[in-house]
Amino acid sequence: MRNVLIAAIALSTGVLSSSAVMADEGQWQPYQMPSIADKLSERGIDIPAEQLADLTRYPMNAVVGLGYCTASFVSPQGLVVTNHHCAYRAIQYNSKKEHNYLADGFLATSKDKEPTAGPNERLYITEAVTNVSTQVKQDIGNDPLLRYENIQANRKALIKECESDDNYRCSVRSFHNGLEYYLIKQLIIRDVRLVYAPPESAGAFGGDIDNYEYPRHSADFTFLRAYVGKDGKPAVFNKDNVPYQPKSYLKINADGVKAGDGVFVAGYPGSTSRYRLTSELKFASDWLYPTLATRFQLRIDTIEAMSAANNEVKIKYAGKLAGMANRMKKYNGLLDGFKATDIAGIKQGRENDFKAWLAKDKTYQSFQTQFDELETLLVEQRKQRQTRYYFENAQSSALLATANKLYRLAKEKAKPDAEREEGYQERDMKMFKARLKRLDSSFAVSVDKTLWLQDLEAYLNQDIRVSELDTALNEGDVEASLSEKLDGLYALTSLTDKEKRLAWMDADAKAFETSADPFIRLAVSLYDKNMSGEKAAKTLAGKLSMARPDYMKAVIAYYKSNNWPVYPDANGTLRITYGMVDGYQSKDALYKQPFTRLEGIPAKHTGVEPFNAPAKLLKAIEEQRYGSHKVATVYQDPASWLCRLFSCLDKPEQFNSVPVNFLSSVDTTGGNSGSPVFNGKGELVGLNFDSTYEAITKDWFFNPTITRAVHVDIRYILWMMDEVDHAQNLIEELDLVRN
Amino acid sequence: MRNVLIAAIALSTGVLSSSAVMADEGQWQPYQMPSIADKLSERGIDIPAEQLADLTRYPMNAVVGLGYCTASFVSPQGLVVTNHHCAYRAIQYNSKKEHNYLADGFLATSKDKEPTAGPNERLYITEAVTNVSTQVKQDIGNDPLLRYENIQANRKALIKECESDDNYRCSVRSFHNGLEYYLIKQLIIRDVRLVYAPPESAGAFGGDIDNYEYPRHSADFTFLRAYVGKDGKPAVFNKDNVPYQPKSYLKINADGVKAGDGVFVAGYPGSTSRYRLTSELKFASDWLYPTLATRFQLRIDTIEAMSAANNEVKIKYAGKLAGMANRMKKYNGLLDGFKATDIAGIKQGRENDFKAWLAKDKTYQSFQTQFDELETLLVEQRKQRQTRYYFENAQSSALLATANKLYRLAKEKAKPDAEREEGYQERDMKMFKARLKRLDSSFAVSVDKTLWLQDLEAYLNQDIRVSELDTALNEGDVEASLSEKLDGLYALTSLTDKEKRLAWMDADAKAFETSADPFIRLAVSLYDKNMSGEKAAKTLAGKLSMARPDYMKAVIAYYKSNNWPVYPDANGTLRITYGMVDGYQSKDALYKQPFTRLEGIPAKHTGVEPFNAPAKLLKAIEEQRYGSHKVATVYQDPASWLCRLFSCLDKPEQFNSVPVNFLSSVDTTGGNSGSPVFNGKGELVGLNFDSTYEAITKDWFFNPTITRAVHVDIRYILWMMDEVDHAQNLIEELDLVRN
Repeated sequence: MRNVLIAAIALSTGVLSSSAVMADEGQWQPYQMPSIADKLSERGIDIPAEQLADLTRYPMNAVVGLGYCTASFVSPQGLVVTNHHCAYRAIQYNSKKEHNYLADGFLATSKDKEPTAGPNERLYITEAVTNVSTQVKQDIGNDPLLRYENIQANRKALIKECESDDNYRCSVRSFHNGLEYYLIKQLIIRDVRLVYAPPESAGAFGGDIDNYEYPRHSADFTFLRAYVGKDGKPAVFNKDNVPYQPKSYLKINADGVKAGDGVFVAGYPGSTSRYRLTSELKFASDWLYPTLATRFQLRIDTIEAMSAANNEVKIKYAGKLAGMANRMKKYNGLLDGFKATDIAGIKQGRENDFKAWLAKDKTYQSFQTQFDELETLLVEQRKQRQTRYYFENAQSSALLATANKLYRLAKEKAKPDAEREEGYQERDMKMFKARLKRLDSSFAVSVDKTLWLQDLEAYLNQDIRVSELDTALNEGDVEASLSEKLDGLYALTSLTDKEKRLAWMDADAKAFETSADPFIRLAVSLYDKNMSGEKAAKTLAGKLSMARPDYMKAVIAYYKSNNWPVYPDANGTLRITYGMVDGYQSKDALYKQPFTRLEGIPAKHTGVEPFNAPAKLLKAIEEQRYGSHKVATVYQDPASWLCRLFSCLDKPEQFNSVPVNFLSSVDTTGGNSGSPVFNGKGELVGLNFDSTYEAITKDWFFNPTITRAVHVDIRYILWMMDEVDHAQNLIEELDLVRN
Repeated sequence: MRNVLIAAIALSTGVLSSSAVMADEGQWQPYQMPSIADKLSERGIDIPAEQLADLTRYPMNAVVGLGYCTASFVSPQGLVVTNHHCAYRAIQYNSKKEHNYLADGFLATSKDKEPTAGPNERLYITEAVTNVSTQVKQDIGNDPLLRYENIQANRKALIKECESDDNYRCSVRSFHNGLEYYLIKQLIIRDVRLVYAPPESAGAFGGDIDNYEYPRHSADFTFLRAYVGKDGKPAVFNKDNVPYQPKSYLKINADGVKAGDGVFVAGYPGSTSRYRLTSELKFASDWLYPTLATRFQLRIDTIEAMSAANNEVKIKYAGKLAGMANRMKKYNGLLDGFKATDIAGIKQGRENDFKAWLAKDKTYQSFQTQFDELETLLVEQRKQRQTRYYFENAQSSALLATANKLYRLAKEKAKPDAEREEGYQERDMKMFKARLKRLDSSFAVSVDKTLWLQDLEAYLNQDIRVSELDTALNEGDVEASLSEKLDGLYALTSLTDKEKRLAWMDADAKAFETSADPFIRLAVSLYDKNMSGEKAAKTLAGKLSMARPDYMKAVIAYYKSNNWPVYPDANGTLRITYGMVDGYQSKDALYKQPFTRLEGIPAKHTGVEPFNAPAKLLKAIEEQRYGSHKVATVYQDPASWLCRLFSCLDKPEQFNSVPVNFLSSVDTTGGNSGSPVFNGKGELVGLNFDSTYEAITKDWFFNPTITRAVHVDIRYILWMMDEVDHAQNLIEELDLVRN
């Protein structure tokens, strides 16, 4: 015992002190995993780093993209699990008056009862990631605009070649702000079906109020299934299609994890700005976010007031409003976070250290002037953004935005496909048309006009004006107010008519230029100004495509000289992040523990949305039907993990419940929703679905003491399947293991 | 080491398991302390229980009452410390335009600069507590009304005898619902002066928003000083008076306490209902509190709306509104608490066990029918309360209440002093007059009328009516609305004139009965109905004065048979409660740690009241001027206390700050504000000032897992004195010790 104790103390000191400096920061490219193998092993992640680096092996070949979320295969029959909020569209698509799956949940008791998730649902399986930096940067020259255009042309050429097999979607993504480019090749599953979803009142329990918050009690999971043609090849929905047999599927550990355990997460994080300069952060925190937040709050208040007065408006704008509330909470979290922690000060300190290093390093000494040049370009970029901000908002009417896009399409279609702007190529037309069709479902003239009027008034109240717009706004009756003039525009346009709107897709530029439709006329009159703005932005991007990669090259050299690992900012590509199951100090004297329990659900339940848990769920909890999913005790504070070695020295908290959600220190961002959470052996133990309010600034700066991701515990999912919804057919499909 | 470890494990198991059953419940009469000596010692409270039982010895003879709060002597020169909110009136009294002590705080740098705390401030030192049950119950007979009146007469006689020395205030308090009566004899200090108070923005940091909440960051302390005549006897304010030399004064431990330490608190808790029957709890939770809360919220909303429109109203009703907000939060806490925990179910279970025991116990078997009779009386009591509720509210106008009291006074004055109703005796006249004078300062006709109209409308909307009131309301112009009629009453009354109002104190009943003042007329016409209601209540009280003590006798026998200690419900008399410094599980996965830190203040600071910490405080924190008051590490979770034995086995949290407020499991209620918090040696380590929101239902049921009291840490007080306010003159007066 004595030896164990001494060993434990040594271990403790070692692990604890290293944990202080070992931030679990990093959204790693899979190929980088071997370079951080020692860190994974310190966290108790035993699966070989080489295995994680290989996209053709378990578990990475079971990880799936949804385009905006992440998912994973969990059965040999193509069963896929992701978040409820990631499958929302699929559930909504299948909800009818007769059977409201959103409200009541859905379970297909056999495969023939699995409906299509909808014509636009896709699963993407990343099969290859290839460094194409050389190809993208080939012969691009130094003229800024030309350079920008050449990069685009090289990217498009690579994509076109890759997409010659139309079962694949390809993209070329910039890494380290243009220092590297990778070609991503993804198999497209086109027949996705709905298998099992809890009611929204469980899947989104707590709704917007709990969004970004913790403690959390969300059943944010849904099961889908991938189908392919009888030949095993991807195919659009057909009832004769068969379940897809994935190359591998995840083992599920029904014992889950405990506080202090190492975990890792694989998925498709969208975007971060960790390597941006302090000046860019300051611009964001001091001007950009406050400005966006003010406008957003006004728009939210306006739509809410108009929704309260008109039920049709309410239904049409419900989705938009939910998205805006989510984004507003993010803005508030960013602003609160910048207030709580002097991130600019921290970044400035690091930047100063970097500059001091630059001055000393022989190879990078010359970069000092380039650093200054980058700052000059960034000043120009900020000026561009501020200049264009009100003019761009002044085009916020959905009808004007549509007219702008349609006229642009006519212009682009005059060019060969390869030379067209991204979004206007043949490969984009299906989506383009779908968006045009969808407009009506979230559009009301009254709201569109009111919001546009607010933006126009904000535009008119500032100095930087565009004469073409001013002229257009001054047209017509001099006595009429701006509001009356807008009424005239809406009265005369035919863009509100779906068929007429779609017909413009086939019109040539001349047809637009001679049209009397007021929104088309406005689009035509603003076109040159918009294009010159775009050209300026592209020119600046061309300049930055030289300056930023140079900067990143120096940063990376600096990091390496310090022995700090380097990962690229998130860009929607497949990444791995690791960490530990852990609570956190939310505020002074307020500690948030890593696991929530079933009993937290009735405690929050009020019967009023979003705290209206389903009766069947409440009943199972009240009757304490926990089955084999119950956990007797937990350690809510990993700081006391050492005592667990003795299992008697410290008092584990009585848990006596099923864990619902849990926290870990992994490094995630938007796009990681639905990501599988793995234990150290690479077995599925949860689904990532959110992160905490205090951590919202992590897109700019990873603060390891407060950054926590929120996961659905696999034990909650299995308990719901077993005790609440009796989804035995699915449980049998899963590969369940125990510790 | 091995032996230590094994011993530690044994100790751990022992203490932890006993702590699970050892609720720190109990507001003990000091004489009871020896009966719980073993529990005190288990909590590490080493001061002998016999010493605590003796009101003439340290530390109990240093504990002081303020009438509505508690305080304690901390220097040989009569220096007293209590809460800022307990000394609020004294600070307000001294705040002028030239020197706003509420806003800026106050420090007398020498004794001659200590102003009077105001003419009504008193300190009460409990010198003797005598059991007078026999005397109170002597010859009281069995006729309910007569019995009630005889009890009152006996109490008054005891008080009169005790108060023959007018340096003493005496009272006879009922214990265990009339089972016992004690005569309390308190020395009155009549010259109280203001010595040192922080600004309100520190003393009440967080204001109403943080009230009843935790984590908390309040400097809720103020120093006063007791003065007496040159002869050492109590005297009213006179500049020649000298500091009072208390029999003892508290040692102050500048090292404070840590998580897991035993603490005890002495003070004057006001009122609890722990021994009430389940039927009484249900009435309170299902009818009384919801009914009161609804009316209260309406009144708060009304006053707030009228205050927003009129600054004079705002000033006059600010104090009332603050009190109402505090009470409203208490109502909400009660209702939330009853919802969160099925207290009625728990109490019912215990009551069932008690009844089962009753049925078996030979001595108390006969009590079963008495139990039924008590329930019958309680049904009657509930009916009375519900019947009288709307009629009593219908007299809520401050002017009508004044008229009622004045007419009652004329009636009572016709009797010999000893026979008068309490509140109308000669000893009460000074206070009576003071209240009449004060009326104007918190009265506006517009508000009084609006609130009264709401109550009258509620009265008219229900069935139980009083014909005298209905007749009065129907008087006059049949066309006039009720609101217009009330306008007439306010226009014609002269009770709004202070001199005229005071003159009524000397008028006889006849003068009232012939007066044309509409409020006096209304009071006269409602008098008989009010008196008959009072008579019914007294008759019921007489019946309950037989049934309740019998019930308590059986309950106490039952408790003793189970070896459960018994303490009486709080009744405003001196009590001792003990417990442990401890955090608590506030919600699922949300743990509130026992200590808050200075850094929590700037984190909450917004600059907007009530989160507008004083600049000097923020500056000292920013500059980390912590002096000798800094604590390097703390254990925020006492569950890991065992590991502290090894001081290396577990990781204490880095604190590196001054503790501000802390939590303990002691059993307090309103009246305990300002109470000294002692460590196990009887040294001062903090001041009690609040309890947590989850614990508000503790007046009915003590739930040891969530009941925590909130204290100001002595280290924060000393730090403020030392580093922020440089009150070296006071620090030198204190008896500071270190561990």
